[in-house]
Amino acid sequence: MSKARRAGKTIGLVPTMGALHAGHGRLIEQSVRECGLTVVSVFVNSIQFDRQDDFDLYPRTLAEDVKFAEALGAQIVFAPSATEMYPHPQNSFVEVEKVAEPLCGKFRPGHFRGVATVVLKLFHIVQPDRAYFGEKDAQQLAVIRRMVRDLNVPIEIVGVPIVRESDGLALSSRNRRLSPEDRRIAPVLHEALELASKAIAEGARRAPEVQRKALAFLARHPEIRVEYLEIVDPDEMQPVDSITGPVRVAAAVWLGGVRLIDNVLAVYY
Amino acid sequence: MSKARRAGKTIGLVPTMGALHAGHGRLIEQSVRECGLTVVSVFVNSIQFDRQDDFDLYPRTLAEDVKFAEALGAQIVFAPSATEMYPHPQNSFVEVEKVAEPLCGKFRPGHFRGVATVVLKLFHIVQPDRAYFGEKDAQQLAVIRRMVRDLNVPIEIVGVPIVRESDGLALSSRNRRLSPEDRRIAPVLHEALELASKAIAEGARRAPEVQRKALAFLARHPEIRVEYLEIVDPDEMQPVDSITGPVRVAAAVWLGGVRLIDNVLAVYY
Repeated sequence: MSKARRAGKTIGLVPTMGALHAGHGRLIEQSVRECGLTVVSVFVNSIQFDRQDDFDLYPRTLAEDVKFAEALGAQIVFAPSATEMYPHPQNSFVEVEKVAEPLCGKFRPGHFRGVATVVLKLFHIVQPDRAYFGEKDAQQLAVIRRMVRDLNVPIEIVGVPIVRESDGLALSSRNRRLSPEDRRIAPVLHEALELASKAIAEGARRAPEVQRKALAFLARHPEIRVEYLEIVDPDEMQPVDSITGPVRVAAAVWLGGVRLIDNVLAVYY
Repeated sequence: MSKARRAGKTIGLVPTMGALHAGHGRLIEQSVRECGLTVVSVFVNSIQFDRQDDFDLYPRTLAEDVKFAEALGAQIVFAPSATEMYPHPQNSFVEVEKVAEPLCGKFRPGHFRGVATVVLKLFHIVQPDRAYFGEKDAQQLAVIRRMVRDLNVPIEIVGVPIVRESDGLALSSRNRRLSPEDRRIAPVLHEALELASKAIAEGARRAPEVQRKALAFLARHPEIRVEYLEIVDPDEMQPVDSITGPVRVAAAVWLGGVRLIDNVLAVYY
């Protein structure tokens, strides 16, 4: 890697927790297109999980991940062990205030602290020029962007659009934990967000009204328990009351013991 | 700087708050000896001050600092403005648990968070190979070492011994705020630490006893108010009860409105 750097090659990093799917594929492809060397990291980061069962059940498919990443042109898969990443008790953490507080931050205590901390560790280890993150984790992307700006991290952060199944379900490593029946129900999450987005495009300006409409739609599916569905500003992720510019409609739901998140950018015309 | 890096020069950073004295001089000299390019940063970092008056009264002597640093062989003095360092509200912080908690951490809430955050920002801006810190701020040095280890920061941290006046007073930018009379009293802080160190070298093994002896010595000087005087392990900075290896005796005192800190390493024979 230091050889690539000395040769003046641009280094791209795609940080993942493995169980790679076409969404990750899009990140890797973009890095391969834009950088001379692409590193895919695969690390299921214990300190960002707020639930032990979620950590335990998180799919781990390293052998397939390596093949997948290399087939797309990545040169390096960096898959450290837990003791390589955390050889001592981890006492230092990156805290990102404000942007990390609403949405998932409210329901997953310590999650974004764990994310920001491990991402900064990976940045220091790999020292890439660019790092690629999916827009499905829109709040994560906003947290990383803020961290990079606030801490002067010399890395360009690239957000990559969500990849969806043909029925609209956003790709996620956790989707493989859905039962066949729940898998058929799951696309209603995206439908609810699209409903909100359409209402905004058609002129709705009061966020609570749009929110109520989307929640009423989801309420028709009793299998789904909504954790949150909020309309937020796209940089700071703070819930808005009136819609005066582009907003993100973001939601987290539970379906058969699996937590799904999704979001859409809704544009005010 | 990127030119120096491409030419394979080692870059040394000496982060300071200015008002440079011979203690800083020792740091700069060591960096100049060991590195191909030395950068001295001068920035009075608002977010590490717990008292507005201390921030306002902190001496600022940039023109002299530049001459001083250059005379010792530093190639670059980096003196950013507050808006360069904090162009947006700072929402991201580095929190170092445990080592930052006792001693000064207990009496200056938010201090080490501010220190760790600005030091990491400077590291990302300057991207040195080595960074030099004085042992006078022993807990600060321990916090930075821990941060670097925990966050995989690719920089070598070098601790440099305390420089003292002939009467034992540790050099500090705040010393110039002492009245002539207080300046005459100030060396008793170091004398108290030496008393403790001598007791340990001579066989004292119970930390509270050693502490009592040093405090009793300081109590003979009513002008001095002790904030803390503790015997701690040198890595984690946690107060110890029995002395079974090298320890640091560290103290903070107030003298005529000026806060002074000092420490000595005490070796168990």
